[in-house]
Amino acid sequence: MATQTNEYPTKAYGASAPDSGVGPMEITRRGLRADDVLIDISHCGICHSDLHSARNDWGRTTYPIVPGHEIVGTVAAIGEAVTRHGVGDRVAIGCMVDSCMECRHCEADLEQYCLDGGMTGTYNGIDRRDGTPTYGGYSERIVAREEFVLKVPDALPMAEAAPLLCAGITSYSPLRTWKVGPGSRVAVAGLGGLGHMGVKLAAAMGAEVTVLSRSESKRDDAEKLGAHAFLNTTDKTAMKAKSGYFDLVLNTIPVRHDVTPYLHLLRVDGVQVLVGMIDMMPELHSALLLGRKVLTGSGIGGLAETQEMLDFCAEKNILPDIEVIAMQDIAEAYDRMEASDVKYRFVIDMESLRAA
Amino acid sequence: MATQTNEYPTKAYGASAPDSGVGPMEITRRGLRADDVLIDISHCGICHSDLHSARNDWGRTTYPIVPGHEIVGTVAAIGEAVTRHGVGDRVAIGCMVDSCMECRHCEADLEQYCLDGGMTGTYNGIDRRDGTPTYGGYSERIVAREEFVLKVPDALPMAEAAPLLCAGITSYSPLRTWKVGPGSRVAVAGLGGLGHMGVKLAAAMGAEVTVLSRSESKRDDAEKLGAHAFLNTTDKTAMKAKSGYFDLVLNTIPVRHDVTPYLHLLRVDGVQVLVGMIDMMPELHSALLLGRKVLTGSGIGGLAETQEMLDFCAEKNILPDIEVIAMQDIAEAYDRMEASDVKYRFVIDMESLRAA
Repeated sequence: MATQTNEYPTKAYGASAPDSGVGPMEITRRGLRADDVLIDISHCGICHSDLHSARNDWGRTTYPIVPGHEIVGTVAAIGEAVTRHGVGDRVAIGCMVDSCMECRHCEADLEQYCLDGGMTGTYNGIDRRDGTPTYGGYSERIVAREEFVLKVPDALPMAEAAPLLCAGITSYSPLRTWKVGPGSRVAVAGLGGLGHMGVKLAAAMGAEVTVLSRSESKRDDAEKLGAHAFLNTTDKTAMKAKSGYFDLVLNTIPVRHDVTPYLHLLRVDGVQVLVGMIDMMPELHSALLLGRKVLTGSGIGGLAETQEMLDFCAEKNILPDIEVIAMQDIAEAYDRMEASDVKYRFVIDMESLRAA
Repeated sequence: MATQTNEYPTKAYGASAPDSGVGPMEITRRGLRADDVLIDISHCGICHSDLHSARNDWGRTTYPIVPGHEIVGTVAAIGEAVTRHGVGDRVAIGCMVDSCMECRHCEADLEQYCLDGGMTGTYNGIDRRDGTPTYGGYSERIVAREEFVLKVPDALPMAEAAPLLCAGITSYSPLRTWKVGPGSRVAVAGLGGLGHMGVKLAAAMGAEVTVLSRSESKRDDAEKLGAHAFLNTTDKTAMKAKSGYFDLVLNTIPVRHDVTPYLHLLRVDGVQVLVGMIDMMPELHSALLLGRKVLTGSGIGGLAETQEMLDFCAEKNILPDIEVIAMQDIAEAYDRMEASDVKYRFVIDMESLRAA
């Protein structure tokens, strides 16, 4: 198939200013470069980052912005040099659409930590070749270089596959980094999009999984997700009984909070991984660290690891619990997400945008 | 030799109250149990913890207190069941004199993290068998069970060996835990008792060692200690140039401070180990942790690792830089230590106490 050099006018939803909300807009996708893939988007998951970026909560947003980095769809066209994907393939894009592919980190499959200016974000980024802004998955279609397009295994339904591209890999990567497996004692704090995947993934890896929550109402949810135990963090006696118990705490709580209680739960050499909190941590007592506890963080995963995660989920039949919405219902979805009123991830059916 | 059941009246220096200062007192060492060793103390190093404990800065001191947990000396007598040591042997005691020796941690050579009530401190602890207080090394002699008595290799001079028992092992253990070796890039923050040993030990392990300091006056000192480079942490350009450079930061700074600048210096998966700060850490931005940086801590080391460290120092001829003082000069030594006016460790010559 010849490379398509014409641009693609594309329906999208985005924000034009911090207080504009997310609404319809028209964007242009570039004509295909030799190594580009054009994807008709079928679904896009909604991540907390979408909302924060749309509102410029982190002060790094360039407008207009089209959010969305949990993207699945079907290949509609390919550039002349593309070898990895063919028209009709089920594919996916996560949080990044490019990196230098040459630095030490990129060569080590850590493209998310690219040393040459960092990864290029799927939205709110700048294309490395032509300097244009990148727009995300709240849109009909997207164009990206083939290496950053992942394969969706046949066993994964498209809608459910979408959240794996951010919530899934963000939970999966630290579990692998810290070698969770049979016999591991894993605690998951926060039961949202990331946390509920953390429970399912850790359980599938053979770990004993405990959900940590302040709210007794999560006990049933934890069990339904496959957790082996529930620990109410407001119950001082129960917390004390599990002091020094866990190998790993996957902390997915997205707001500022004290991480100290979770450090107490760790054994010597145990690890607390922060994956959700993009905020200041309150002061904590350094003596907690003298029990040789480890406090660390993790951001998404590299391309190879993301593909591995998709394949793992297909093999083990691990799917996020989702609620599918129409593109037009995005404002309500954001409101409900902020109120933690979703079990556990919203996914936009992009047919609703095409039909509009 | 028959077990000596009579107690030993012993000259010591200690504090009777938070504001008493450290002065002469008489204590009693227990008569030897079957597994006890009696040691004539030749030297005792002075650790920051001694000063904090004497003044009850941490609120955990029981008076009277006799500080000192960097103890070296010669075996003067042994209990009837002792097999590890003989009269005349050159031996040492560090920060602990007992633990349960049966729990998971003790069995893993992590007696410092004993799960059964914790290790028994060399001072300000409670003997596990008779409930009496433990008194430290600012004294003529000490009695301890043989497993907690380490061997001082012949190649180590006694005075210089003393600081190895706390400052030495505290720096050595995290370097081993995090597998520092040839090719490692190690930065040492804080150039006191711990830091100067960190420089020497990391260099002896084959690492490239950089001293981090706010003060240009430390540049020469760093070089003399064997560091390969010096990085002035107030020089923003120099700091930025080393962003992402180091595998490990050994942070020995003993007072409250922001650890963020050191996290910036770490590569992905790099590790900052806190060994000196027994205090609250100021709030820090969790996003720093999203570069998959590790923040952890470390406290002394187990018995086997401490012996390994002593043997390593003997083999590599690594000795602390010390200033020997008389027991009677302890108040001045404390003042100078607080003013960071010592290169790099005070060691008490216990002959001064015997002669008094």
